[in-house]
Amino acid sequence: MKLPESCEWVLHCAAALAQLPPADTASTGQLAEHFGVPAPYLAKQLAHLVRAGVLAASTGPRGGFRLARPAERITVLDVVEAVDGGTDPYQCRELRQQGRGAAPAEECTEPCALAATMRAAHDAWRASLAAVSLADIVGTLPAEIPERTRRLLSRPR
Amino acid sequence: MKLPESCEWVLHCAAALAQLPPADTASTGQLAEHFGVPAPYLAKQLAHLVRAGVLAASTGPRGGFRLARPAERITVLDVVEAVDGGTDPYQCRELRQQGRGAAPAEECTEPCALAATMRAAHDAWRASLAAVSLADIVGTLPAEIPERTRRLLSRPR
Ligand code: FES
Ligand code: FES
Repeated sequence: MKLPESCEWVLHCAAALAQLPPADTASTGQLAEHFGVPAPYLAKQLAHLVRAGVLAASTGPRGGFRLARPAERITVLDVVEAVDGGTDPYQCRELRQQGRGAAPAEECTEPCALAATMRAAHDAWRASLAAVSLADIVGTLPAEIPERTRRLLSRPR
Repeated sequence: MKLPESCEWVLHCAAALAQLPPADTASTGQLAEHFGVPAPYLAKQLAHLVRAGVLAASTGPRGGFRLARPAERITVLDVVEAVDGGTDPYQCRELRQQGRGAAPAEECTEPCALAATMRAAHDAWRASLAAVSLADIVGTLPAEIPERTRRLLSRPR
């Protein structure tokens, strides 16, 4: 079970945008340079965040990305699922109804206890990430970090 | 983020062994047939469970697998991590210390709040799976299922 490396990129991009004044934007190029990651691949990931309604994109010479809503209302889960797709890593294929030991359908009206256990764990993971907003993350940073983020990402374009 | 399909196989194999009288064993071939899955690939997964100390293997004509300890003391987490390796799906590569926006090391003595959030979610997932034992799973089954499991997996060999 593995999250893509780009998950860390987009979490940091979203957290960086949460440190800018609300109307400010940062471009893919700026964000890629800020974090030292490849711009073309980062662009694809940022597009996922736009599609998921986490970021808003504007075009033109001063265009770029900003949060689509206040940082208080974007959770870490929103960002992770925008990149990773939000499907449960465990997929039950009703193994209990296969093979020589197959249970007849009438014994399988309840979800399999193993599938239910795996689902409950995924729900706990989601709830944990949904409890933390980008505003919470920014709130934990020492003051120097948002200052530097603003200074570097709001440079004259 | 995806768990291997074999995760469902080994969960069901472990739960099936938990339904047998403690000294009884079932072979790879029997388990593969019971669930309709390919024996050679299942054998590899069962070897992971033996290595992780979840199953014990005995050789010889009546050999096979049994639980390495009572079903009360084997959790769903033990089985899943034996197959999936137990590493956190999120790997922090200290992105905050990279690129033009790199934070100096002295600002990074605390773990990054994003990494800590992801870690807490993984801990919640693990705790959820660690709270359910194979005995709990067997306890949820309608009586017909353990009866059938015992009848089919304890057939004369
Ligand atoms: S049938 Fe899928 S987990 Fe049991
Ligand atoms: S530095 Fe890795 S998550 Fe922030």
